[in-house]
Amino acid sequence: MEAYQLTATQVLARIRDGSLAVEDYARSLLSRIEQRDAAVKAWAYLDPEYVMKQAKALDQMPAEQRGPLHGVAVAVKDVIYTKDMPTQFNSPIYEDHAPTVDAASIAILRKAGALLLGKTTTTEFAATTVGPKTSNPHDPTRTPGGSSSGSGAAVGDFQATLGLGTQTGGSTIRPGSFNGIYAFKPTWNSISREGQKIYALLFDTLGLYARSVADLELLADVFALHDDTPPPETPFRIRGARFAILKTMVWPEVGAGTAAAMDKAAALLRAHGAVVEEIQLPPEFDDMPYYHRVVLHAEGRVSFLPEHRTAADRLHGFLVGHVENEHKYTRAEQLRAWDSMAALRPKMDAIAAGYAAVVTPSVPDEAPKGLENTGSASFCSIWTGLHTPTVNVPGFKGENGLPIGLTLVAPRYHDRHLLAVSKAVGEIFESEGGWNRKSSLGV
Amino acid sequence: MEAYQLTATQVLARIRDGSLAVEDYARSLLSRIEQRDAAVKAWAYLDPEYVMKQAKALDQMPAEQRGPLHGVAVAVKDVIYTKDMPTQFNSPIYEDHAPTVDAASIAILRKAGALLLGKTTTTEFAATTVGPKTSNPHDPTRTPGGSSSGSGAAVGDFQATLGLGTQTGGSTIRPGSFNGIYAFKPTWNSISREGQKIYALLFDTLGLYARSVADLELLADVFALHDDTPPPETPFRIRGARFAILKTMVWPEVGAGTAAAMDKAAALLRAHGAVVEEIQLPPEFDDMPYYHRVVLHAEGRVSFLPEHRTAADRLHGFLVGHVENEHKYTRAEQLRAWDSMAALRPKMDAIAAGYAAVVTPSVPDEAPKGLENTGSASFCSIWTGLHTPTVNVPGFKGENGLPIGLTLVAPRYHDRHLLAVSKAVGEIFESEGGWNRKSSLGV
Repeated sequence: MEAYQLTATQVLARIRDGSLAVEDYARSLLSRIEQRDAAVKAWAYLDPEYVMKQAKALDQMPAEQRGPLHGVAVAVKDVIYTKDMPTQFNSPIYEDHAPTVDAASIAILRKAGALLLGKTTTTEFAATTVGPKTSNPHDPTRTPGGSSSGSGAAVGDFQATLGLGTQTGGSTIRPGSFNGIYAFKPTWNSISREGQKIYALLFDTLGLYARSVADLELLADVFALHDDTPPPETPFRIRGARFAILKTMVWPEVGAGTAAAMDKAAALLRAHGAVVEEIQLPPEFDDMPYYHRVVLHAEGRVSFLPEHRTAADRLHGFLVGHVENEHKYTRAEQLRAWDSMAALRPKMDAIAAGYAAVVTPSVPDEAPKGLENTGSASFCSIWTGLHTPTVNVPGFKGENGLPIGLTLVAPRYHDRHLLAVSKAVGEIFESEGGWNRKSSLGV
Repeated sequence: MEAYQLTATQVLARIRDGSLAVEDYARSLLSRIEQRDAAVKAWAYLDPEYVMKQAKALDQMPAEQRGPLHGVAVAVKDVIYTKDMPTQFNSPIYEDHAPTVDAASIAILRKAGALLLGKTTTTEFAATTVGPKTSNPHDPTRTPGGSSSGSGAAVGDFQATLGLGTQTGGSTIRPGSFNGIYAFKPTWNSISREGQKIYALLFDTLGLYARSVADLELLADVFALHDDTPPPETPFRIRGARFAILKTMVWPEVGAGTAAAMDKAAALLRAHGAVVEEIQLPPEFDDMPYYHRVVLHAEGRVSFLPEHRTAADRLHGFLVGHVENEHKYTRAEQLRAWDSMAALRPKMDAIAAGYAAVVTPSVPDEAPKGLENTGSASFCSIWTGLHTPTVNVPGFKGENGLPIGLTLVAPRYHDRHLLAVSKAVGEIFESEGGWNRKSSLGV
């Protein structure tokens, strides 16, 4: 197996036992990138020389100074500040913008020993659905999703071992599903968003990508995510556990692929001894998509005022619309949406607390054709608004053979619990769901 | 009158009619600063040559390109990024830290034509109560308050015409009261906090300082603050208006000065024809200070993780305590605080909507002795947590002759209404409250 194919957990084990040098691992990734970049175009900025310089420095670091991610390569969405690389938000206003400051997440990752590979493509300010140049690694004629297009595609395509995304609607989970990888949106504000361009303060959440749940657990350690009750040392057991199947109020948008995945997921969980119940949310949740939209626009009205003032002609019309309040949302409407969502959060926690996890769609279907549009966030924005942690668990496929994942949901601040459950569920979905990452990519 | 003594509204009028050059105004301010800096020490960074360079460029700008704040001098709290000046957070970790990026507020002010004077002192990360070097301009043996110490003192001392602060507990309103100026904390997230160091995401709010409400209205225009119903063109009339006097659950902390100011305020408003009622909040508000404290610590636990990881030995013990969760707050406790505050916000709006404004203390009393401690945020943190706009209206004095202000509160997104009311109330408090800014400073 080539080093680029390893998970972070495997990379760390080999670096620790001396069987892999960071330099060789970095070279393997750069060679994979060189081979695949023309097809996938996941990178907004990547300097191979700088990658190798970091790798050499990491190899020279004495063992006792090494951090918990020593040498592991991370792709960084280009809405997150990195002091040594440009941060351009896929905005012509910020071309060559390179502030010499690290986001909180980057400072933590650097200290943990991560190798920062480069910056990955995003839709403009992670706020539009207009795709960047990036293709889905499993089918270059299809979108990798957005807005974390490049990080999702790079991790999906083995060009990076871990990736950082962000989510305001469905920007982490959707690329997770489309690219066939694990995507983790932790509880809102459980990881600092300092240095991550603001779209909607109440929703924006750092997202994490990996090809295994063990890797997400590694990141959860690095970012100090702790539940009140730590998960038990022994792996979570599916047998006897209760799962909810939740189609949500946006189920009419579902396609054949996700509908089949939901059925198959329920059947697989039952076959492995779980108790699976189909549930519905109370009617008061019906307006969640509307509440999310109102707050999104109201907060975007604030966030993009500087760009509107200084360079409105180079700001996407969708965001100009936010600042100019094109839908004429009133403050009263905005507050009702804000307050209603706030009231629903503890209610959702109480519902989710009755289950090991709630299983719900990540996306309507497999990645749609074309690169122009990154797809729908409908199934994700509910959870972004409710602040719950969610994990996209891959393993299923659509009618064109492309990956489909499902979302697991847990109550707020049950992030570690959710990861433990996702690990057990992922083993089943990945081995019996019908889709295989390595055979899809021929690696 | 010297140019440094003018309000922003007056400066703008004179620049527009050609009777004042930005350069002369800037020189007047720099001369005031030179004369007073040894006593007040409001500045963390100030480069007179760069100030004059900006002033000259502004004078050369053609009339049709000039913005609504053309030439007006603004002091910027040193937790807000400025691309052309260092941003050091009063933290040894960030000594000489100078990222080449503007905060959203700075980008908007620059575009509006503001003259950015320099960076003003703050407590460490605007998060501790340990005073910086700055003195109260009205008594150098006393604190100017914090954490926006330098901006409050600079505007109070006529060293800057306008100032930017921030508030997470009482960091804008408290220096407003201690320095005898107007301080405005707008509705939470009604101005972008992009580029402002995060302490507690749910509380941090950009704060604005001026020596007149007209100047705050000018800033409210620049920052695009709009209520659903714009205030009428005619000035707000005190006669016949209803005001609430609210002592709050923290009233036991009040001192003689503020208690007297509250009585005098009620009497003055009544004397001018207002209907004044003393009200109490329902008992469910009693835990607001506790909720604020729990969320503050929980969010600080996230915000200061990078500094804790990279330089814990140079991080204040109070903030190390946040990251290490020294009070052992559980996630359940944190969520209960978050959700309870969220539920109280619309209830507070409904109460405040019954009045032109709610009048409540800004601080326990006049500025305390010593520079070590910046004073108590008890009376302010309630409103920071409730997200309501508040204005400190000066005009009263304590037993040592130092300024005391009172806070006016309105429902969320009634910022313009609150400013209109504060203007009328301020005229009364400033002329009949017993304290006079100019005679206090002998200018």
